[in-house]
Amino acid sequence: MKDFIYNIPTKVYFGRDQLSHLGEELKSFGNKVLLTYGGGSIKKSGLYSRIVEEINKAGLELYELNGIEPNPRVTSVARGADLCKEHDIDVILAVGGGSVIDASKFMAAGRYYDGDYWDFHGKKVPIEKALPLVTVLTLAATGSEMDTGGVITNPVTHEKIGRQADVLRPKVSFLDPTLTYTVSRYQTACGSADILSHLMETYFSREPGMYLTDSVLVGLMKTVIRYAPVACEEPTNYEARANLMWASSWAINGFTRIDKGPNPWSCHPIEHELSAFYDITHGLGLAIVTPRWMRHFLNKDTLERFVQFGIEVWEIDYNLPKKEIALEAIRCLEDFLFKDLALTDNLSDLGIDDEYFEIMAERVSNYSGAARFQDMSKQDVLDILNASL
Amino acid sequence: MKDFIYNIPTKVYFGRDQLSHLGEELKSFGNKVLLTYGGGSIKKSGLYSRIVEEINKAGLELYELNGIEPNPRVTSVARGADLCKEHDIDVILAVGGGSVIDASKFMAAGRYYDGDYWDFHGKKVPIEKALPLVTVLTLAATGSEMDTGGVITNPVTHEKIGRQADVLRPKVSFLDPTLTYTVSRYQTACGSADILSHLMETYFSREPGMYLTDSVLVGLMKTVIRYAPVACEEPTNYEARANLMWASSWAINGFTRIDKGPNPWSCHPIEHELSAFYDITHGLGLAIVTPRWMRHFLNKDTLERFVQFGIEVWEIDYNLPKKEIALEAIRCLEDFLFKDLALTDNLSDLGIDDEYFEIMAERVSNYSGAARFQDMSKQDVLDILNASL
Repeated sequence: MKDFIYNIPTKVYFGRDQLSHLGEELKSFGNKVLLTYGGGSIKKSGLYSRIVEEINKAGLELYELNGIEPNPRVTSVARGADLCKEHDIDVILAVGGGSVIDASKFMAAGRYYDGDYWDFHGKKVPIEKALPLVTVLTLAATGSEMDTGGVITNPVTHEKIGRQADVLRPKVSFLDPTLTYTVSRYQTACGSADILSHLMETYFSREPGMYLTDSVLVGLMKTVIRYAPVACEEPTNYEARANLMWASSWAINGFTRIDKGPNPWSCHPIEHELSAFYDITHGLGLAIVTPRWMRHFLNKDTLERFVQFGIEVWEIDYNLPKKEIALEAIRCLEDFLFKDLALTDNLSDLGIDDEYFEIMAERVSNYSGAARFQDMSKQDVLDILNASL
Repeated sequence: MKDFIYNIPTKVYFGRDQLSHLGEELKSFGNKVLLTYGGGSIKKSGLYSRIVEEINKAGLELYELNGIEPNPRVTSVARGADLCKEHDIDVILAVGGGSVIDASKFMAAGRYYDGDYWDFHGKKVPIEKALPLVTVLTLAATGSEMDTGGVITNPVTHEKIGRQADVLRPKVSFLDPTLTYTVSRYQTACGSADILSHLMETYFSREPGMYLTDSVLVGLMKTVIRYAPVACEEPTNYEARANLMWASSWAINGFTRIDKGPNPWSCHPIEHELSAFYDITHGLGLAIVTPRWMRHFLNKDTLERFVQFGIEVWEIDYNLPKKEIALEAIRCLEDFLFKDLALTDNLSDLGIDDEYFEIMAERVSNYSGAARFQDMSKQDVLDILNASL
């Protein structure tokens, strides 16, 4: 258990009828709002009109940037950051899922940066200043609505890289579970796999942290496992959508991680390579890779953690032999992802072969992994990727 | 599950070696610091010198108020608020447990109030402005280090009343588990009973809220049950002290309560009457009253919640008959409080008789309880008090 600083000041309006507070919150940051979003779904759903109405009612000046893609690109960041400079924007309002929010975070930082915006991810230049960011979430998945990070893709270099900075954390987020009623079964499943992955990446850490945070991690994992299949079957089940949405924020906002010290994740960097090269949905890539990562690293050093995972999260009988509990836990996870959530269980079916595995594995193994749950050599990553075919 | 606003911006420095940040944090609020504390224990332990050193190093102007009593009195609030006015204090630094922090909250508000300071509790005048408050916690119990409330006693009227206001929430809190190493076995037990009570009062609510928050409540309860006896036996066990300290903050900072709507507590108001009349330790009073409250209100309407409490928190076999699970859960709680923590299990042993029960019961039943888990009539409270003798 490490010393830590807890500092998660994001204010969250949660529930069905909170957008009436949007105007006052935006106004507290200034007058010029840049509204960012993805495709046209928020226009179809009526959310766009509702938001514009609130902005007008508050007498704010509205600018817009749309067309932010899934796996958002540095070119989108550049468009937004340039707009912020040109119009001297006071606050960014991101409406969408993790992609829109991630891209908006680096627009907010880009407002104060004069170099190439890819430097944030490529060269890791310092990020010490950013415009305030307000979000309206439409997908429970990445947790970007309450965390300090974002992942941006550079399609030229086939790189997809995450970056964190305190100033990127949204100031205010609006979480209305009913806004996710229209999320497809497939995207609901992928988003849930992403949330669960954040929790598992944190749970499987070398420094176990406090029992308290572990017990919260377990509670959050059980929440996802309980409600993701319900949301897939009954898309307008409020209880399921609400639990998943709040779980997405708490899986990654920092609360469950801060007492563990540096804990580089394992499956996320592998998946980032896959979606950098093949533009697949992040949660799906994680679902495919994670059980393979588990089978690869189940050994006598890690057995105890897998046993706890089995007993606490999957409620497997603790009287069984330890190895059996561990393997059964991985089987339970596979059943959850590939049967309950009906996600594709291999890369081949996504049209992915081993063409770029060497370069992917090389890149992943280059990340510093000294504090990782299990250090990953290039060969480890290759084995995991090949097992995922 | 209700709509809610989540807004818990307290910054927490947690761990062994964080006080070096004290000066910079205080300085961010201004130059004149009022240091508040209780008896002499922080001088004996060396904490006082350490804090004064940090304040001097930061070049701040120091004022002091000591002698804040357990079950802090409105007279202490008055002394502090008057000092704040007289010296135009910029920030209050409360060093101690819940009593010191609670009193300091109302000094911070009193700085901007010209009437009788008891009005905050007696007349419930609005509290919209307060000085910033920084805390250094020395006892894991009330959670005042991260919440918006405080309880003050008026010895003249024998009243002990809680009050909450957003502006009272500490801006920054320093939580160093080693500062609780010197807390006696008895105070450790009472503090742990208080934390557990906050969690149970929230868990037993009419509006069950989200599965997610319930699962966090369960995790926090299990944390207290696991580590309180360890801390009693091994006062310098860091893991135990750290888990209890962080649990104290999260039991009551609002995270586990906001989705439940109004949920007036039950055992706290009864205990407040007891300590208003007899000045007993808050956690001890709660320990004595709570199992009686449970037995009194275990009925066919509440059975299901007690069964869940038994299965989830005490891990009682779910195959048993429901009534049996519920009763066993209460027995487990009694064993925990009166055997593991060795707390006194009745009021008579504290020299309390039924002399003031009528007036206590009258007062408790006057609180609005429409949304309470089980509404309490005067007779209900009398029965619970008599069963506690």
